[in-house]
Amino acid sequence: MLHYEIAPELTPAYIQSVWQTLPRHIRPTLFLSAPCPELKCEVTIASETFQYTGSFKFRAAYNLLSSIPQPHIIAASSGNFGQAIAYASKLLGKTCTIVMPNTSAQVKIAAVKAYEGSVDLVDVRQVSRAERVAQLMAQRTDAFQAQAYDDYRVVTGNSTLGQEIFNTTHFDVIVAPIGGGGLSSGIVLARDFLQHTETEIIGAEPLPGNDAARSLQSGRLIRNEQEPATIADGARTVSLGKLNWEILQHGLTDIIEVPDALTSRALLHCFRYLNLKVEPTGALTIGALFADPERFSGKRVCCIVSGGNVDPSVYAQILTTEI
Amino acid sequence: MLHYEIAPELTPAYIQSVWQTLPRHIRPTLFLSAPCPELKCEVTIASETFQYTGSFKFRAAYNLLSSIPQPHIIAASSGNFGQAIAYASKLLGKTCTIVMPNTSAQVKIAAVKAYEGSVDLVDVRQVSRAERVAQLMAQRTDAFQAQAYDDYRVVTGNSTLGQEIFNTTHFDVIVAPIGGGGLSSGIVLARDFLQHTETEIIGAEPLPGNDAARSLQSGRLIRNEQEPATIADGARTVSLGKLNWEILQHGLTDIIEVPDALTSRALLHCFRYLNLKVEPTGALTIGALFADPERFSGKRVCCIVSGGNVDPSVYAQILTTEI
Repeated sequence: MLHYEIAPELTPAYIQSVWQTLPRHIRPTLFLSAPCPELKCEVTIASETFQYTGSFKFRAAYNLLSSIPQPHIIAASSGNFGQAIAYASKLLGKTCTIVMPNTSAQVKIAAVKAYEGSVDLVDVRQVSRAERVAQLMAQRTDAFQAQAYDDYRVVTGNSTLGQEIFNTTHFDVIVAPIGGGGLSSGIVLARDFLQHTETEIIGAEPLPGNDAARSLQSGRLIRNEQEPATIADGARTVSLGKLNWEILQHGLTDIIEVPDALTSRALLHCFRYLNLKVEPTGALTIGALFADPERFSGKRVCCIVSGGNVDPSVYAQILTTEI
Repeated sequence: MLHYEIAPELTPAYIQSVWQTLPRHIRPTLFLSAPCPELKCEVTIASETFQYTGSFKFRAAYNLLSSIPQPHIIAASSGNFGQAIAYASKLLGKTCTIVMPNTSAQVKIAAVKAYEGSVDLVDVRQVSRAERVAQLMAQRTDAFQAQAYDDYRVVTGNSTLGQEIFNTTHFDVIVAPIGGGGLSSGIVLARDFLQHTETEIIGAEPLPGNDAARSLQSGRLIRNEQEPATIADGARTVSLGKLNWEILQHGLTDIIEVPDALTSRALLHCFRYLNLKVEPTGALTIGALFADPERFSGKRVCCIVSGGNVDPSVYAQILTTEI
C-alpha cells in the first residue's frame, strides 16, 4: 500500500485519477529499439524529446497547473521546467513569471517568451533565485509557487511516463536520469502502484554532482555544497527533494554515476546510430550503460531520454569533440 | 485507372499486395505537429529518420529484395540506398556488394559494412560507378542489379509512406523531396491509387540541381550535365528516372527550387524547434516552405522528412554557421 509521510495526498486514488485524465493532454513517449552490439543488452529508449516543450517536464507542469486555482504561477528555472510551466500556463489560461539568472542563454529566455511567459532576470551575485521568487510571491496574493520536483503533483504527473513504459512490454531494468529526483521518483511511483516488483529501477546521475548516489549509499539525504558543474545541465541540483528522497531511498536498486565524458559519448551515440537529438541530461541513461555495461548484460533495459533541448553551439561542440 | 507505359507490372493489384505485406516489415513513419508562426500554415512532418537504416529507402529496398530470386545484389550508392540494400539483404538472407566512390566518407562505408554488406570502392576518375557495376554484374550470373529509383518495385515500396500519410488525416498539400524521383513518385502513386484528387503533391528540389523543375516546366525529361553540387547529398542525381518522370509529369502540381541556404536554415529549424535531427536532403521540404511561404498560406501541409543520416562534422558545421 502506497503511503508517503511527506505527501499524504499521494494516494492510489489520486494516481489513478491523474492516469485517467493527463494522457489526453500530453504526447505519448516515443519508444525506439536501440541495438548496440557493444552493450550486450537489449535497449529500448523511451524518448521525451518530442513531448510538448521538448522534455518530460510538461507532464508535471500540466498536471500541477491544472489542479490549482491560482491564475498566476511563479517558478525559478533556467531550463526545461520554465518552458513547460510557460506552455502549460498558456494552455490553461494562466500567466506566469519565470525567474532566470541574467546569464541564461538567450535561446532559453526566448523559449519561455515564445510561450508567452514573463521572464524575470536576476543577477545571482546580488540575489538568489529563491530570494527573488520569495520577493515576487510577496507582491502577489494570487500567485502559486511551482516546485520543479518536490511536489506530489509533479511526481504523479511524471509517473504517467512510467504508466506508458509498463503498458508497453516487460523490462528487467528501467534507467532514469536523476537531478532533483522528480522523474525517477515518478517512475518508482508507477512501478510500485502497478506492483511490478520484478522490474528494477536504476538512477543515472552525473558523477560531478553525485549527491543522490551518496545519499543512497549512506541512507540519508546529502546535499552538494554548491550547484555542481556538469555538462548535464538539467541535473545541476544541490540535492534531491524531500518527497523524492522518501520515494527513492527504498525504490531505487542503485544509482550509476556517469562521468561527463560518457554522457557526451552517449549523446554522439544517439546522433550517429539512432538519429535522435538528445540534450546532455537526456543522454545520462545511455551513458550509464557505457559506464557499467556488465550491470546490464543480457537484460531488457529501458533507458529514459528525458529531453532534447540544447543550444546548437553546445551540441556542435560535443559532436566535433567526440568524433 | 492506373497504367504506366514503362511499367505495365505496376497495377492496382500489385500496389494492393505490397500495401498488405510490406508494412509489417517496416517501421511506421513518425508524425510530428510542427507549429511555425512565421509560416502561416499548419505543418505536419512525416519523419522517416527513425525508419530502419535511418531513411525511407528501406521501404523500397525491402520490397525489391523480397520479390526477387537472386541471392546476391549489386548496387551503386554512396548513401542511404546502400545502407538500406545492405540491411534488407541481411534480413532476407542475401548478400550484396555496394559500389561506392573511394572518396566516400568513412562513416558511410562503415554503415554498409555494419549491415554486413561488401563495399567495392572505385576510383571514379578511372572508372564510373555504372561501369564498375556492369563489370561486377558480368562476373556473377546469380546477381541482381538494384536501381535506387527507376524501378516499379522501388516506387511501390515507397508508396507505403503515402499509404500511411493518407490514412492519417486530410492534407491539402504533401511536399516530397526530389532527387531521382523515387519517393515523390511513390507518393503520387499512393494518391492516385486512393483517388485523393483533392490533395496536391509538390516537389522540393535543390536549386543547384533543378533538372526536375526544368523538366516539369518544359514538359520533357531534362538532365543535368553533371552531378550537381548541393548540400542535399541525397538529391545529387543527374535526372529523374524514366518511370518516375512518367508518374511525376502529370502527378505533381509544382516543384519548388530550394537554395542550399534555406535547406540549412530548415535543418536548424528542425533542430531548434522540433528536436528533430534531419539530414540536409531531409530538410528540403521544410526549406520549400521557407522558399515560397505564400504558396502554402492557410493550408494543411504534410512535409516529408526523408532521412536523418548525416556526418557529425557536416551537421555541426551547419549548426554553427546558421546560428
